[in-house]
Amino acid sequence: MKRHQFSAYSWQEVEEMDRASTTILIPLGSTEQEGTHLPLGVDTFVAESLANEVANNTGALVGPVLPLGYSEWFLEFSGTISLKLETLTQVLREYTLCLIHHGFRKLIFINGHAGNSTAVDVVARECTMSQSARIAMVEIWKIANSLAKDIPDLKENAFKHAGEIMTSVMLYLHPDMVSMDRARVEYVKSGQAPFKAKSSLGLADFKGVEIKVYEGTKTLTESGIMGDPLSATAQKGELIFNALKSYLIEMVTHF
Amino acid sequence: MKRHQFSAYSWQEVEEMDRASTTILIPLGSTEQEGTHLPLGVDTFVAESLANEVANNTGALVGPVLPLGYSEWFLEFSGTISLKLETLTQVLREYTLCLIHHGFRKLIFINGHAGNSTAVDVVARECTMSQSARIAMVEIWKIANSLAKDIPDLKENAFKHAGEIMTSVMLYLHPDMVSMDRARVEYVKSGQAPFKAKSSLGLADFKGVEIKVYEGTKTLTESGIMGDPLSATAQKGELIFNALKSYLIEMVTHF
Amino acid sequence: MKRHQFSAYSWQEVEEMDRASTTILIPLGSTEQEGTHLPLGVDTFVAESLANEVANNTGALVGPVLPLGYSEWFLEFSGTISLKLETLTQVLREYTLCLIHHGFRKLIFINGHAGNSTAVDVVARECTMSQSARIAMVEIWKIANSLAKDIPDLKENAFKHAGEIMTSVMLYLHPDMVSMDRARVEYVKSGQAPFKAKSSLGLADFKGVEIKVYEGTKTLTESGIMGDPLSATAQKGELIFNALKSYLIEMVTHF
Amino acid sequence: MKRHQFSAYSWQEVEEMDRASTTILIPLGSTEQEGTHLPLGVDTFVAESLANEVANNTGALVGPVLPLGYSEWFLEFSGTISLKLETLTQVLREYTLCLIHHGFRKLIFINGHAGNSTAVDVVARECTMSQSARIAMVEIWKIANSLAKDIPDLKENAFKHAGEIMTSVMLYLHPDMVSMDRARVEYVKSGQAPFKAKSSLGLADFKGVEIKVYEGTKTLTESGIMGDPLSATAQKGELIFNALKSYLIEMVTHF
Amino acid sequence: MKRHQFSAYSWQEVEEMDRASTTILIPLGSTEQEGTHLPLGVDTFVAESLANEVANNTGALVGPVLPLGYSEWFLEFSGTISLKLETLTQVLREYTLCLIHHGFRKLIFINGHAGNSTAVDVVARECTMSQSARIAMVEIWKIANSLAKDIPDLKENAFKHAGEIMTSVMLYLHPDMVSMDRARVEYVKSGQAPFKAKSSLGLADFKGVEIKVYEGTKTLTESGIMGDPLSATAQKGELIFNALKSYLIEMVTHF
Amino acid sequence: MKRHQFSAYSWQEVEEMDRASTTILIPLGSTEQEGTHLPLGVDTFVAESLANEVANNTGALVGPVLPLGYSEWFLEFSGTISLKLETLTQVLREYTLCLIHHGFRKLIFINGHAGNSTAVDVVARECTMSQSARIAMVEIWKIANSLAKDIPDLKENAFKHAGEIMTSVMLYLHPDMVSMDRARVEYVKSGQAPFKAKSSLGLADFKGVEIKVYEGTKTLTESGIMGDPLSATAQKGELIFNALKSYLIEMVTHF
Repeated sequence: MKRHQFSAYSWQEVEEMDRASTTILIPLGSTEQEGTHLPLGVDTFVAESLANEVANNTGALVGPVLPLGYSEWFLEFSGTISLKLETLTQVLREYTLCLIHHGFRKLIFINGHAGNSTAVDVVARECTMSQSARIAMVEIWKIANSLAKDIPDLKENAFKHAGEIMTSVMLYLHPDMVSMDRARVEYVKSGQAPFKAKSSLGLADFKGVEIKVYEGTKTLTESGIMGDPLSATAQKGELIFNALKSYLIEMVTHF
Repeated sequence: MKRHQFSAYSWQEVEEMDRASTTILIPLGSTEQEGTHLPLGVDTFVAESLANEVANNTGALVGPVLPLGYSEWFLEFSGTISLKLETLTQVLREYTLCLIHHGFRKLIFINGHAGNSTAVDVVARECTMSQSARIAMVEIWKIANSLAKDIPDLKENAFKHAGEIMTSVMLYLHPDMVSMDRARVEYVKSGQAPFKAKSSLGLADFKGVEIKVYEGTKTLTESGIMGDPLSATAQKGELIFNALKSYLIEMVTHF
Repeated sequence: MKRHQFSAYSWQEVEEMDRASTTILIPLGSTEQEGTHLPLGVDTFVAESLANEVANNTGALVGPVLPLGYSEWFLEFSGTISLKLETLTQVLREYTLCLIHHGFRKLIFINGHAGNSTAVDVVARECTMSQSARIAMVEIWKIANSLAKDIPDLKENAFKHAGEIMTSVMLYLHPDMVSMDRARVEYVKSGQAPFKAKSSLGLADFKGVEIKVYEGTKTLTESGIMGDPLSATAQKGELIFNALKSYLIEMVTHF
Repeated sequence: MKRHQFSAYSWQEVEEMDRASTTILIPLGSTEQEGTHLPLGVDTFVAESLANEVANNTGALVGPVLPLGYSEWFLEFSGTISLKLETLTQVLREYTLCLIHHGFRKLIFINGHAGNSTAVDVVARECTMSQSARIAMVEIWKIANSLAKDIPDLKENAFKHAGEIMTSVMLYLHPDMVSMDRARVEYVKSGQAPFKAKSSLGLADFKGVEIKVYEGTKTLTESGIMGDPLSATAQKGELIFNALKSYLIEMVTHF
Repeated sequence: MKRHQFSAYSWQEVEEMDRASTTILIPLGSTEQEGTHLPLGVDTFVAESLANEVANNTGALVGPVLPLGYSEWFLEFSGTISLKLETLTQVLREYTLCLIHHGFRKLIFINGHAGNSTAVDVVARECTMSQSARIAMVEIWKIANSLAKDIPDLKENAFKHAGEIMTSVMLYLHPDMVSMDRARVEYVKSGQAPFKAKSSLGLADFKGVEIKVYEGTKTLTESGIMGDPLSATAQKGELIFNALKSYLIEMVTHF
Repeated sequence: MKRHQFSAYSWQEVEEMDRASTTILIPLGSTEQEGTHLPLGVDTFVAESLANEVANNTGALVGPVLPLGYSEWFLEFSGTISLKLETLTQVLREYTLCLIHHGFRKLIFINGHAGNSTAVDVVARECTMSQSARIAMVEIWKIANSLAKDIPDLKENAFKHAGEIMTSVMLYLHPDMVSMDRARVEYVKSGQAPFKAKSSLGLADFKGVEIKVYEGTKTLTESGIMGDPLSATAQKGELIFNALKSYLIEMVTHF
């Protein structure tokens, strides 16, 4: 554990920092189903690993990681632990206001879970309006999705829940937590025709246009997987992780 | 006012309905800045007009319209009236649970304002898990964005806040409320280079990848416009509105 | 739709207004049982119609109408959609504070539903104490009750839920939504003697004195009617509506 | 202290009671300005005294008294301690649900303060709908107002805050807490003509009809008195208190 | 009732006080099981009696007593009325802020129930940080526990729920509410060996070290008693009460 | 990272577990001042390390760690990040209910921060009453305090914030995060005589008896230290940590 962690410093050392110019990275994760082959903590592990790497290379500090997010629609799958969106929002509000109270002005949420994004939005907008803070959020899988086009040999050209990209990154970072023998290819099942479910978040296609039709997640995917993890490799994972890392280092450097 | 309105029926008539098979359309609007030339109620007006047309053509009923949404980031502009996201969520939760309590099982939110979407998500997921309801949401401007590619002569190939699509629809529906002499072309200003703001919701581009950098809205757009309303016409508006209407009629029919 | 609607103006037009001297009328309705012959939206429709007329004659503006109120005791009747009183209070608090934030100082709630009154009270008292706003509320059926004594030929000398006054006003404003063939005379049944129920709000008479004894509404009235709608006519409705309108125009003019 | 107090019994004695047929009286008071000559606790003292007398004569039990109510509009006067209406509602909700949990089915709120009434309404309606409880509320000053017409020599024919009725009752019950040398006649001042304030709750007269115009309380009454306490006597107080007591004993007996 | 009660003063008298130097004592009680022989209100009665005595001897004033506390774990015993901890906290927050709003700066909570302590802590810390108030709390049974060592002939050298100390104090203050024929010796039963329950609050002993193991209270004590009330006497109660009183008088005098 | 982490398992593996007999350890930390020489995350680091060791030796699983606690009174010291107690309680409520929802019945909170204890109490009591769960909490510094008497050469015979015990444990676990050159001996200053502050939680001594007098923390300790860290050594830390570990292993084994 190196000294890029915010909580590795004493209050006095924090007081001595140039707080207004020190960027705090806030990793947000989740504890939710990530397919039969990946551990519940994928979002947390990857957000934390990325934040640590970025901090090591930029002088930013990594704030305490939140391992619980808003994942209510996955409660049908064993092990998912979800906060209500209202609760998560309040936690982030208090977290952010404390940092601002201490003089920090540059906060970047390193968000490993799409379900958390609105809570960040709400808090960031409030603080931007009423405080002199500068806040950003990077949604790591969404960025991975953008960067994937430059990764050679990726079969999936877009990020899928528990699919090739996520599985590859985990094979690179935490192979001991991946059970490839439990992996299989599964895509979100079409719900009730003619509505074609696109994700577990409610996204659905009707005549080529995206709308939302909410369905119980287990009716959409039996395994929790919504892509093809079988083509994942640690090598691809390394490329993706490094691409994310480079991107974030540059982003943080310019923030 | 025709009898497609839910609240145009007496309680006894509601009781006599085949409630389990009657679809309720719930129009969600906002009261927020929509550029210098468009009225604050655009989202509400269009959501309500569409819902009415769709109901007239499908047998669905239009529930009471909510004219206040979550638009907190526009409070810098005079006239914006915003609910907190938590408050909006609670309103939608109680609205939805009452309908389900009365035996309705098919609810579609006709959402005129992107800021409301998460509140619908939260409530729809809760009800889908704990109740036997079937819930959908259509985000009208997002659909307009998809349908725009088939509209001839549109200059903007994507929906922009207070831009060509929105202005055209309003010129068609409510020309008396549009002040074209106050319209002008304005795009979201780049915030702090190298971050390039893409919308007032925090979206920003950094090296071709989308992240979020939250900024006060007035620093992004002076007029509130984020597109080109000058090329808008009522004719284009009619085409767009009718495309939306046809799409929604078909969607509701299949729901 | 004329330009007496607040949301028919652009943010720039709002900014150009003399906001401190512009009165905003806020119509509050409900979606609740109004007897077997009247539609669920009576309170909303009448509040909105009155507000529009008053605005047209005074220069006041009509804010977005809230069609959901606090009507929890009517949930036994199909179609009633009620907010919790706490939720309604929070909605009104945010609505009001936004208007005050933008510089408006004169707000009048045009309240079509008695159940909403406490929520207005709470918010108005808070704002009166902590802000320089001037707030009023008119409860339209209570005023109708006062004005009724001057309307010739009215059989009911006091306002009754779904009775002569309300039915007459609806016959005048929205005859298409009134089903006189479903109307009948019904009065609140005496609950458990010697307590004599007086209304669905809990009011009861014991030995000539008013107390409250709460009972399920369906035990009090089978039809939801608590008066005599059979003597209602559109002509009476016109007189009542015009009396209300004149009164409110004068009231708003002096505010 | 006699054994009419609920909290004077042990849990075992409560368990041995015929709880379904035992009525619990719940005294609600306030701590608020009651004029220059009356103590802050008037509402609490009178509600508690009445509840005790009624319990002594009926076998009902007096639950714990709540000495704080919703009196926010009096915070301008020193010593007023007010709960938010939402907080009071939650307190009453939990109080009531605990009693129902233990098998009590007959609850009567002995309410000494009009500001508390809506909180009781909300809770009573919820419990009436979802639980098999029977709930009533008596608003003691409103009843005093009704009974006053039968009290000889009363100068005020209607209850006034800190006026003849309230002062008389306090001269009878707690003469040591009344400072008649600080009493004076004061009526609610007309606010801004032509609106004529009628009470500190916002009630106002406009052209003979009652509406609400909210004003800071100190602008309405300098002393907090809104009637004529000078004609108060302990003898009148005794008559009023006994009339209240007799009425409530009869009411509780029939409940 | 003497004039040591805060609510025995008029608002004007409060205004004339030297509020910054007047200490307000706030008695906090509970309504909860206190064994088979003691009444539900013990904590309230004792807190109030002590506060009154202390006020009489120091010039401090006694604020309105709160007879409901946080006692949720006793709801299995008939008659217990508990607020949620969150609700109690909010009540105390509003109570305290009102007093501070009126200029009081010295507040001492006379707390008769351990379950209330955290709510006081939370509010006191908030006010200490953001307001210029000085706040203290005395937990009366904890103090009794400390003072007990100096009371001759006490069999229990430590305070026990419904044991010798509490019973003695009640025999002294309210013998009419004590049913010694229902008293018996009972100690908290060992839950599941090797965990040895120490109190109803969850405290448990494992290998001589205190941890918490939460169990339903009725599995810990059948009677609700957790000590030896049989050795209680009014004489011991008088000694304990007077020791508490002397201690608190001195404490308040120095505050 | 080994497989003692709850979130290292996939949802399917969780489903295959014997959930009713698997104990979940929930580490609770804080981010707060811990003196000039210790990092903000001490409570989190130690709770997590202990939970990991215990899990490794017992088959229990370690749930996601919460690194933010209730530390509001330390906000005067730079870097402290505190949740409101109400927020923390809600987080723990949702966390716990999700685990129970999935069939886990044995939960032990490994609590590194005393300020969190009431939140655990509240949730554990709720769940014990309404669910068939078995919940325990170990407060690690309180246990360390008990075990300290058996550690040779300890100068402090009781746990002190940032004192010998805590510093020793950190010197053993994370020497790189300890700045002994910033350590100094400081004890909680006596606040206002004759009240003698005993801790930053409000504890104070008056005449040998413990009461609470709340004071701003910086008036009590300049450095945040409230003991003697100078005598701390890694060897003592190892002994203490191992004693804690052995104790907890045994406790968990018997749960």
